[in-house]
This record gives sequence, C-alpha cells and structure tokens, in this order.
Amino acid sequence: MAKPRVAVVGYGTIGTRVADGAARQEDMEFVGVVDVAPTLPIRALYESGVPYKIFALNEGFKPAFEKAGIPVAGTLDDVLGQVDVILDTTPAGIGAKNKETYQRRGVKAIFQGGEKNEVADTFFHGYANYEKGIGQNYLKLTSCNTTGLIRAIDALDREVGIDRIAITIIRRVADPGDTFRGLVDSLMVEAVPNHQALDLMLIMPHVQATGMLVHTPITHGHIINVVAKPKKSISKEAAIDIFKNHPRIRVVKIADGFNTNTSFFQYARHLGNKRADMYEIGIWEECIGNSGDDLMFAINIPQEAVTIPETVDGIRACTSMQTDRLEAVGLTNRYLGLQVRK
Amino acid sequence: MAKPRVAVVGYGTIGTRVADGAARQEDMEFVGVVDVAPTLPIRALYESGVPYKIFALNEGFKPAFEKAGIPVAGTLDDVLGQVDVILDTTPAGIGAKNKETYQRRGVKAIFQGGEKNEVADTFFHGYANYEKGIGQNYLKLTSCNTTGLIRAIDALDREVGIDRIAITIIRRVADPGDTFRGLVDSLMVEAVPNHQALDLMLIMPHVQATGMLVHTPITHGHIINVVAKPKKSISKEAAIDIFKNHPRIRVVKIADGFNTNTSFFQYARHLGNKRADMYEIGIWEECIGNSGDDLMFAINIPQEAVTIPETVDGIRACTSMQTDRLEAVGLTNRYLGLQVRK
Amino acid sequence: MAKPRVAVVGYGTIGTRVADGAARQEDMEFVGVVDVAPTLPIRALYESGVPYKIFALNEGFKPAFEKAGIPVAGTLDDVLGQVDVILDTTPAGIGAKNKETYQRRGVKAIFQGGEKNEVADTFFHGYANYEKGIGQNYLKLTSCNTTGLIRAIDALDREVGIDRIAITIIRRVADPGDTFRGLVDSLMVEAVPNHQALDLMLIMPHVQATGMLVHTPITHGHIINVVAKPKKSISKEAAIDIFKNHPRIRVVKIADGFNTNTSFFQYARHLGNKRADMYEIGIWEECIGNSGDDLMFAINIPQEAVTIPETVDGIRACTSMQTDRLEAVGLTNRYLGLQVRK
Amino acid sequence: MAKPRVAVVGYGTIGTRVADGAARQEDMEFVGVVDVAPTLPIRALYESGVPYKIFALNEGFKPAFEKAGIPVAGTLDDVLGQVDVILDTTPAGIGAKNKETYQRRGVKAIFQGGEKNEVADTFFHGYANYEKGIGQNYLKLTSCNTTGLIRAIDALDREVGIDRIAITIIRRVADPGDTFRGLVDSLMVEAVPNHQALDLMLIMPHVQATGMLVHTPITHGHIINVVAKPKKSISKEAAIDIFKNHPRIRVVKIADGFNTNTSFFQYARHLGNKRADMYEIGIWEECIGNSGDDLMFAINIPQEAVTIPETVDGIRACTSMQTDRLEAVGLTNRYLGLQVRK
Repeated sequence: MAKPRVAVVGYGTIGTRVADGAARQEDMEFVGVVDVAPTLPIRALYESGVPYKIFALNEGFKPAFEKAGIPVAGTLDDVLGQVDVILDTTPAGIGAKNKETYQRRGVKAIFQGGEKNEVADTFFHGYANYEKGIGQNYLKLTSCNTTGLIRAIDALDREVGIDRIAITIIRRVADPGDTFRGLVDSLMVEAVPNHQALDLMLIMPHVQATGMLVHTPITHGHIINVVAKPKKSISKEAAIDIFKNHPRIRVVKIADGFNTNTSFFQYARHLGNKRADMYEIGIWEECIGNSGDDLMFAINIPQEAVTIPETVDGIRACTSMQTDRLEAVGLTNRYLGLQVRK
Repeated sequence: MAKPRVAVVGYGTIGTRVADGAARQEDMEFVGVVDVAPTLPIRALYESGVPYKIFALNEGFKPAFEKAGIPVAGTLDDVLGQVDVILDTTPAGIGAKNKETYQRRGVKAIFQGGEKNEVADTFFHGYANYEKGIGQNYLKLTSCNTTGLIRAIDALDREVGIDRIAITIIRRVADPGDTFRGLVDSLMVEAVPNHQALDLMLIMPHVQATGMLVHTPITHGHIINVVAKPKKSISKEAAIDIFKNHPRIRVVKIADGFNTNTSFFQYARHLGNKRADMYEIGIWEECIGNSGDDLMFAINIPQEAVTIPETVDGIRACTSMQTDRLEAVGLTNRYLGLQVRK
Repeated sequence: MAKPRVAVVGYGTIGTRVADGAARQEDMEFVGVVDVAPTLPIRALYESGVPYKIFALNEGFKPAFEKAGIPVAGTLDDVLGQVDVILDTTPAGIGAKNKETYQRRGVKAIFQGGEKNEVADTFFHGYANYEKGIGQNYLKLTSCNTTGLIRAIDALDREVGIDRIAITIIRRVADPGDTFRGLVDSLMVEAVPNHQALDLMLIMPHVQATGMLVHTPITHGHIINVVAKPKKSISKEAAIDIFKNHPRIRVVKIADGFNTNTSFFQYARHLGNKRADMYEIGIWEECIGNSGDDLMFAINIPQEAVTIPETVDGIRACTSMQTDRLEAVGLTNRYLGLQVRK
Repeated sequence: MAKPRVAVVGYGTIGTRVADGAARQEDMEFVGVVDVAPTLPIRALYESGVPYKIFALNEGFKPAFEKAGIPVAGTLDDVLGQVDVILDTTPAGIGAKNKETYQRRGVKAIFQGGEKNEVADTFFHGYANYEKGIGQNYLKLTSCNTTGLIRAIDALDREVGIDRIAITIIRRVADPGDTFRGLVDSLMVEAVPNHQALDLMLIMPHVQATGMLVHTPITHGHIINVVAKPKKSISKEAAIDIFKNHPRIRVVKIADGFNTNTSFFQYARHLGNKRADMYEIGIWEECIGNSGDDLMFAINIPQEAVTIPETVDGIRACTSMQTDRLEAVGLTNRYLGLQVRK
C-alpha cells in the first residue's frame, strides 16, 4: 500500500501541530499546508526553514503571501490533486463549507471538534471507537477536553467498567496569544450538562455522563475533575496502574513539582518539545481518591496538542492503513514518541 | 439581659465586614476596632466618619496612628474592660496568641477559620451546630468555603438526608487588592481531600466528604461544584425549593445575567451594599442536575463576607442570647437584611 | 430658573453611575432611567428600592420587564416629554441614532466618549473648556482616560503652562464582570499615537501630545504615566501642591498602602462609596519625578466613575445653569462630596 | 588557547537557558549543571536525553537525585576542578555566598542581576561596556529589563548620542509556572526612579535616566516605553534602521500579527525555538514616534532568555577570549543563530 498523502487546511493552533504530528509519521507522506494569509505561524514556518510546502487557499489569497516574501506552492486546488486525506483545522463552520470541495474532488477529510457532528460519517476517538472510523470518508474528532477525558474513561472502562461519571471542567478560556477571547478576574459558568459529557456519551453510549463547566482566565491546559461510578470497585492504586500503562497518559506527582496545569507546559518546554507541546494528558497521583465506591481523579488537558495523536489515528482509520485498533494507535504513538513510562 | 458588648481585633478583610455586621445588630452594642497600624481600612473608616472607636493594639502602636492624624481611643487593654466578646480577625496564628490575653481578662472570643481548631472550645456553624456553641467561651468559625458549603449541605440534609459528597472547589486565589498572594496564568492543585471536606465532617460527622481544590487567578468568589448522594432521591425542582427557602442562599439564573462568580459582586455593587458585599451564597438554577441518584449543584461563595452572618450567630450562641437555633439565626438575618426571596 | 429635568438612557456601567450622580444634584430633578431589558443593574435597582422610575425603550421592550416582575413607568417617548436633558450612555454608535429622536423632540443630550465627535456640537470637559459647552444642545464627553488626564494637565497648564506631553497608558481591558471582552496573560499594544493624546489636543489645542497604549488584563483602573514638558520648570513639590488643590484629584502615597490601581477601589469600598466607586483620579506622590526639565507623574483613572463629575458639569453648561466655570464645577463637586483634602 | 570550560550553578529559569546558550558556543566546552534537588527542569533534562552532566551541590543533596532515579556525576566540588568559569544563576543572594567557594578554588564567575553589585568586579553588558569585563574575575550581568533596554539605548547612543531617557516599564510579575509570586487583577506601582534607570546609568554614565515601573499580572515579556532625548534629532525611519541593523533586536509590525508581548513568545514557539525562547528584544514599528525632538519607542523584553547572549559575552570577556567588542558579540551571535534580518 502506498503511503497515504496528507495535507493540512488551516494552519492555526491545531493545524500547526497536526502538520508536525502527521509529518512525523514515517508511513505517511506530508504534502503541505494551506492557509488564507501570511499569519505569524506561516511566517515562522517560512523563517524556520521547515520544508513544508505552503499553499494559498485560492489565487485571490496569493498576493498577500507574496507581499510578505513567502513563496507559495499553489492553491488548495493543487493540493487536492496530490493528497488522499485533508486534515481540516479551519475555524468552526468553515470545515463544513470546505467539505463540499473535498467531496467533489474525492478526497477524504478529518474535521476538528468545532464542526457540527453532521459534517462527518463518524464521530471519532482513536482509542475508544477506532473501528467505527475504518474506511470512512469523513471523520470528526472529539474536542480537546472530550478527547483527553475519553482516554482516561476508556482506559478504566476496559478494565473495570464505568457506569456513570459526573465531571467538573475547569477550562482555560483562551490559548496563549489570543486577543479575541478572554475573561478578566471572572469564572464564567455554563448550564449543566456540558457538551463534553454529551459528546462522551456519543462515543461511549454505555456510560451515563453529566457535568459542570467553568471558564477560567488562564491559557495552559484545562483541568477536569471526574467522579466516576465504576461497575466494580477500584482502588486508587489500581487506577494509577491503569493510567500509567497508557502511552497517552502521564501520571505525575504534585510532590515532584507538578503543582499546576502550567507545570506540564513548563515541563514540555524543558523537554525541548516543539512549541512546548505535550500530547499526553496528565493525572496527578495525589488527586486520586475514593468517595464511597466512586473514584475521583483529576486530569490535565493540554488543549493545543492533545488531539494530535487521535487525529493521526483518524488518518490510519479512514485510509484503512490498519484495521486493528491497538496496532494503529501503537504506530501513531511510536512515531510521536509516546510510550509507557514507569 | 444587657446587650452584649462586642469589639473587633484585626480590621482587615473580615474584620471590617464583621464590624459592620455586628454594629447592625440592634440587640448588641458595638464598641470599636483594634489594629496595629493606620492601614487603608483604618484610614477609610476615619475619613468616612463612621463612629467606631479606633484602638491601637498597645501603646507602642499609637504613634503611627497619630502621625496619620487618626485619633485613637485607647488600646486593646482598654477594650477588654468594656466588652463581653472579641471577634478576633487577626491573621492566622495571631489569634491563638491573643487568646491568652482574652482568657486572662475573662473575655469570650470568636476566632476565624485560619486559626487551628485547638484555639476554640467549639468549631462552629450557625445553622449546622448552633447548639454546640451555646455558652462556650471560645468559638472558631468555619472558613469561607466551608461556611457556605455547609449552609447548602445542611439545608439538604435536614430535608432528605445526605450520605456523602464529593466536591470540586474552584478557589479565588487572592482577595481584591492583595499584593502578597497571587497566581498568574495558572491553576494550582492541592492533594485530595481538601481541608474543607475534612472540616465539614467535623461539623456534620454523619456526612462522608472528600474533594479536590484548584486555585484560580481571580478575586471575586469561589465556586464549589458538589456531587451529593442523598439518602432519598431528590429532584432538581425540590432542591431549588429547599435552597430558595434559605435566607442565606440566593438562587439565580444564568439567563438573568448571573453568568460568572463576579456577577454576584456586580449585583451587590448595584444593590448599593456596603463594600459591594454579599452575605448570601449563590446557587445557579441551570447548574443543578442529577447524575443517577446523585444531585449535582454549584455554589458561589463570596469569600469576603460569607462568614459574617455565622460569626454574628456565634455571638448569640456564646453569650447565650438565644438558645434556639432558628430564633438566633433569624435575628441575625433580620438585622443583616437577609430574607427569603421568592 | 426651574430645575433642569434629567434622565438617563442606557443603564449600564456609566448609566448607573451618572444616574446616581445626577440624582445627587440638589439643583436638578432626576426623572428616571431607560433601558431595553431587565439587566442585572435594572434588577438590582428595583430590588434595592431606589425610587428611580424605570422606562422601557419602547412598547416592544416592556414585556421582558414585566416578565421579570419589574414595573415600567412608560417608554422613552414618555420620558422625552418630561425632561430637558438626556444623558445618553448607550453602547457606542447607538447614541448617534438616538440623537435623531432627541432632536425631533427638542431635547438636549450629552453623549459619552464612545460616540463619534460629529454627534455633538462640542467636545466637552468641565474643567478645561466649560465655556464652549454653554447653551449648546449636544455635548460629547471625553472618554474616561482622557477626562482624567485632562484634569491633571489642565491643572498644571493653568499654573505653569504645558508645552507638550508624551504618555504611556496602561489600560484595564475590561470592566468587572465583563464576559465579552478580555485578554489573558497578554499585554496588547496599539499604534502610536493613541486616541487619548489626539483627543486631548482637541480640548487643549495649545498642547502637543502623543502616546503609547497597552491593554492589560485587569479591571480596576487605568494607569497613565505622563512625561510633560512645562513652559516654566516646576518642582515635584510644586506639582504635588497643584494636584492637592484640585477637588477631583486625590494625591496618595504608596507608603500609606496605595500600592496598586486596585487600592483606590479597595479604599472606596471601605469608604462606603456606592458601588465602591471613586470620582477622583489618583496621583502617587512617590511616582512624581523630574527628567531634566520635564515632569513625570502617574495617574490612576477609575474608569467606571471618573467621567460622572464632568458629565454633570455638562448638564450645567448646556442648560446655561451656570456660565462661570468655577461656579459650575464647584456646585457639581459640592453635591458629589468632592473637596480639597490637605 | 584552550576552549574555556563552563558550568552552570542553579538550573532554574536562567540556568536552564544559559546552559543551552553556552553549550551552543563551539569555542567553549560545556561541563554540566549543578543544583540542589531533582526539580522539574532537572527531571526534564534527564528525560530528554541531553548529555549535560548533572551535579549535586554537595554530598548531602545526592540522595534526592538518586531517589528520583537521576544519576549524579559528582558535586560542585568536582565541577570546580574542571571549569574556568561558573555561570551562577542561583536565587538572589546565594551567588554572593557561593563566590567565596569560587574564589577559594580560583574559578571565575558570572552572576545574574539579582545579586548585589558588590559581588562583582564589573557590572557588565556585552554591547555597552564589553571592554570593562576583559580579564576580570567576577562579572555581574544587568537584569533582564536593563539588558534589553541598554541594547536599544546603546544602539541609538552610538549613532546619534542620547542625552536622557524617561521610561515606563510594564513588567510581567511572574514567569510561566511560578506559584510563589503573582498579582491578580492589579497593577502594582513602585516609587520613581526604578532600579533599571539607575542601573543603566551605572553602565552608561553619560546618559541621564529615570522611570516608572508597573507590575502587571502576565508572564510573557515586559514592555518598556521609552521617551529618549537624543543629542541630534532622529527620525522614526532612521531609528528603525538602527534597530534593524542590530542582531539582538527584532523589529516587527503590529500589522503582521505582533500585537501583544505574547506574540513574540508564540512566534518563538512556531519557529521551534527550544523552550519557545527568544533572545532578541522586540520593537514595534508602529509604536515609534516623535514627541517634539524626543524619540518615543516601545521594547518587548523576553525576560527568560534575553540575558543569555550578554552572559555568553561575559564568558568571552572575563576569559579574554576576545578583546574586541564586536568580534566577541559577533561570535556569540553566530553560535546562537542571531543575525540581522532585513
């Protein structure tokens, strides 16, 4: 089988990261990125000398790139003749419009959580429902919170069964550098249940879920506190063991210095990860506890990069590269450097 | 019975507010406030013309007040000859030292949540365990989060019984104007269980409690999300009804504009409340839900003023002004303008 | 002369405060407030029992008030038959539309800084150009930063002459409780010169002004650092003296506890000011210095309330209640409780 | 001449970065890093596989590293036998104590801005006073703000002469991830003049400097607005040209997306810079202007990494590797990838 050829449309917060994630997959061919303007990420891509081809969405957008001194390899139209799968990371709502073009050209696409579910054949999570994505033309990824949450719930569910969860999401309100969103000195609340609980039930319909969501004025990572009712009771130690065995979960200790959501970001900086990103969700050992038979634990969600592995899994599924779930996620993990650390 | 005479030692965030709260009780006599320096609250007290007497802690602290042009009525020593109860709102740890002086002079005292439990005969909450405080010499109030949380849990518990709770506290990290505490762009986590859950079990030993606590960089009000397992199942509507019947709980709607913790503070500003304070905890109608038989709901805790009513209740208890719980809290409520609003 | 009758259209951040400011003027008659919905300020107005009449903008907006249980006294149409001057504090751009209605009904109006200058006959500042507003039909106030800045520059200019200023505005990005604006962990810059410098030159055309503006993620007060070139050299002490003699300027010391912009807000809380508002700008003694012959000083601008006095001055000017500048501002000051404190 | 051997003592915010900066100098030999505990940076260093040797400060600190599974190559005592220059980046005050050890062992050292000036023979800036550091044993670097500020002032001064400056520093109050410092919803002010102005005058005694400093609750970069009085008048365009010719200054445009201090950090993330760091100060084209003959411009200071180049310059100076200023800074620049971009 030829390597699937992949391109990214929309080179923003997710697009920049999924481009790098896809480019690291040695069994895929990364073609390039498409955008509408010489944004800071595009300028940095060019200045940094990374050999991704840069495409303008259409001829009308080319002059802006040229004025910025950034050579353009063509347009989306050209890209669609060279790829098998588009990773569409455009702002919410644009993806649905782009889909018509992809369909016309017979190109598969994977959309992000901001799009409506109707955009896709399958609402997809690499670990929880890989099989449903196999051979499909259009997948939609779960959002960052939901992706990370499902990693943890799916891991527990496969071991002890999860009956229901009640979650409290403490959400970062803006990404670093955003000037179009924000809160100042306020915690904004949303009505119960939050969409993440509803979305989890679409992926894992056998679990009952509800939750509360609070926006907080910070930028580096959501925190979700979970109260989970398992089907068989589970100790704190057993839960830690399950989490530690998951290549996309990093179990840490407050005592070691991981005392904030930002400490994950700082750790990634010191690791030398590009953009100081972390693919893994974090779980604090000291924040796991029991409430009766319920298990309580808290997750850190690195919102900028957490969906990258599952998006890459999606390429594997929709192109039928792998039909075995664990083989697929295992390859994604290998190329992204994700492994069990004990 | 003569009106009990009351003074405040430590005129800071709590001291300023409990002074006003006590001064509003028509069946008490408010003597004045004691502090160690002409702080901004002391300067504002003097400039605003409020007729509280100002005392320096001892002779050594008098010159600083005089230099600021603020007349001093004497020292703590003078105060102790004129009062029955001291409300000690000094920084954590100082109260324990002051207690020796109070004991020597035979004056009762009420300490704040920052002191260790050993400082007091009784760990006190006006609604939940009023009876235990009657006639005692030294009471310690629950902290702001615990005070507000117990109001809600006690209200439910008296109606349907509460078996256990798992809480997520989303805490404001600093009060407005603090320069000695703070977080920037970070959510700081603490080990499970949080002290508020442990403290609740001291006041309500028949309830099992645990919880997670996250500090957030905001100043106007903590939010607690509660997952409560009731002894008999309770609907969302029934819970709202219980909360609405509590004079120290304000049930609000996101749809009306109460979409943040800060909206309570803003509302208090527009009400014309002194210092924009609110004594009531807030509960959002849209944030109440069921998770199986569990009840989930979220509370807003106005950290600066929430403990004032229960502290005033404490005066009533320790001086045996009232021996009936509901009579006592009812009088406190009346003088503070707290009432059921439906 | 009959007392001028005044109403407020738009009961938001400025509208709530200017309503109270106008209502405190014993030589004016305050008729009521007009809005389009039972917002939190309207609900609080009703709950607090303040006797302002509440009007809906038109018949179509009445049902929302009624549904909220808030009696409505009529519509804007009714108001316009009962008043001489409208204080239009609607969101930017709406005032210009409302003006047509005011003109048709022959009612004067004062607009806020968000409207374009063309909306008014005169761009107005009570202290700096009172005379230009006398007898005019439509005034536009300077914005919060410009209003406060001009107070200080005008005070210096009348004593020693000011040749030019270069200012750095460190701006609060949102008011308390805002959820529609914000920045997180970012300082946003704007191109030089800022509009406040340009606006100052419209009011004080004999002064040359430029400046830089930086938005910061806080809510309680802008800070402006001014480098002013005076026509005759002026010492720090002389500048302090000028500022202390201004009833709308409060000179404070870091050493006394005024170490942040928020400390003014905190002080106003402790003073018992309604909404914890302060009309005065603040100037820190320790932040005044000389750079060669230039004078450097820093101003705190309480953005929510700072324009209230000058807006009230505007009523005096446009209705020709006073034709003498100092008599007019003096009356405004008296009724607002503003006085020289030394 | 043998390559100078260099080690870092104190592997924190500056230490991590200066270790990498020194290790990139092909004409130096980097020996390793010394710390007192397996902090997050130490853990990340080990996990990331970077081949720096890790040393414990002394035998007493070894067990903590061993418990964390991190092999230790020895102690500071061992390091001092293997190096010519220590980069001491310990917390303020510790460096002065360490100096006694360095002196006893005859090892040169470079201290950071937090130490007192007395710790060093020379208060050093690579571009402004390189010559003074040549052959000295103990250098102290200017602080982050002063280092960046002097780059710009020195560049102008060498072209047109600078008579005096009045600066406004809008300071980030904490580094990302700090939990021990912070402000919430407050701008904290300090008395005039700030230490950065005083420090600049120590390095450039022919320039008169004063300034105001405001702390803001953000983490990614200080902003300094400068009002400079040049000896000969200089246009905005000429100033831009001077700045663009400096390898450690990056001139950017708001119009291109550099609209916040955080945008530099974001750009560095997308460039793939380790830790998302930037060595260059930023200057916004649109924020340069004239006020009379004065030049006004605003600088972005990336506080975590800005001092790295000048610290490396310090190694060159104190070891007399280069005696020519421009040759020295040019080599530092080359190895750090700093170059003029036009």
